[in-house]
Amino acid sequence: MRSDTPQIPRLVEVRKNVLKQNDVIARALRERFREAGVLAASLVSSPGSGKTAFLEKILTLLYPRYRVAALVGDLATENDAARLARSRAPVKQIITGTVCHLEAAMIHSALEDWNLNNLDLLFIENVGNLVCPSSYDLGEDLRFVLLSVTEGEDKPLKYPTIFNSADVAIITKSDLAAAVEFDETAAKRNIQAVRPGMQVFKLSAKTGEGLTEFLGFLESRRARPRAAGA
Amino acid sequence: MRSDTPQIPRLVEVRKNVLKQNDVIARALRERFREAGVLAASLVSSPGSGKTAFLEKILTLLYPRYRVAALVGDLATENDAARLARSRAPVKQIITGTVCHLEAAMIHSALEDWNLNNLDLLFIENVGNLVCPSSYDLGEDLRFVLLSVTEGEDKPLKYPTIFNSADVAIITKSDLAAAVEFDETAAKRNIQAVRPGMQVFKLSAKTGEGLTEFLGFLESRRARPRAAGA
Repeated sequence: MRSDTPQIPRLVEVRKNVLKQNDVIARALRERFREAGVLAASLVSSPGSGKTAFLEKILTLLYPRYRVAALVGDLATENDAARLARSRAPVKQIITGTVCHLEAAMIHSALEDWNLNNLDLLFIENVGNLVCPSSYDLGEDLRFVLLSVTEGEDKPLKYPTIFNSADVAIITKSDLAAAVEFDETAAKRNIQAVRPGMQVFKLSAKTGEGLTEFLGFLESRRARPRAAGA
Repeated sequence: MRSDTPQIPRLVEVRKNVLKQNDVIARALRERFREAGVLAASLVSSPGSGKTAFLEKILTLLYPRYRVAALVGDLATENDAARLARSRAPVKQIITGTVCHLEAAMIHSALEDWNLNNLDLLFIENVGNLVCPSSYDLGEDLRFVLLSVTEGEDKPLKYPTIFNSADVAIITKSDLAAAVEFDETAAKRNIQAVRPGMQVFKLSAKTGEGLTEFLGFLESRRARPRAAGA
């Protein structure tokens, strides 16, 4: 397919350098999160899978009990930060322009004036994209890939790389499952085909279905022993 | 944001070369389509917006009256080609691997063993992505950007480039509009904010709502005078 585009190898080489540098910054971020005792979790999905609605709900539920904050990436607009701020948690928008993913350096810059010691949980909502974010480590402890019931059960098979880069899958908009004749068995089978053993949550930010279970999971991850002194 | 990533300017320069070469191939494709009297239309959208369901429906409706065919791009799987083939129209899958968009060279290769003189309409379904496909001209006469009612009304504001690269917007899954409390006025206002004067169709591949109007539009575009001898 690429036989007519001889520049590609050079492009790949340049991209490798960018990725390598990203990994260095991501490692430093991960170390900072660990030292400050912050659980950092990122969200990736297609545009419109319900990342922001889900995150607004989670932040609202966690806010009274934990020191939570969020970074949110978009090519344009501060709409998502405005939505998330309704949870009362500190939120910062990262505008990526034409870049279809967040990079570790963007997280680093966004966190410059935040004291991580004042945080328990940090959520990072990536740009809505099932391809570009796969390769960029953001230093997070957990990566969630979201898949809404309206998107089609075969998305894991069509975008295996992003599912492989994630730790946990979340099926969103479960309240619409019946209306779209969502085949949960097929969706879960496809997730397991791409990433055997992957934990899957099914929930609805609208009705609250499945949120208690998900919050329990988050709290169990928070409770894991951290480095001495944290 | 990009101050920590000094390689970016070089990456941009390399990408410019790739794009320039893409435009040369796209121009040649457009000329071939014109000479053969083929109306070529591409579809871009987020993953899960219903491109394949829509296209299967359109191909099925057009097949008895027109010589239609489709190319469909995905990172992995031939699922979409199998679905579209149920329309009985000739279909070819383009597997892009890790590339998040179709390029003109891929279209050129895929068409190598097809005689364009035997076609009236060619549909090209791009990889599900609201960013990457924006910059790649595929030689098509028309580019449709699809937006499902389940995705959120602000997608045009968040992905202005892809809406600007398209000719016509299609709001899909209209049968779910009530269930998701879709705000059609807001969605249309956001489309017009990004691309003033853009024509918008609203339809459902499931119920058939809006399909007659859309087919009428396609036929009117087909009927436009073509080059002498076509």
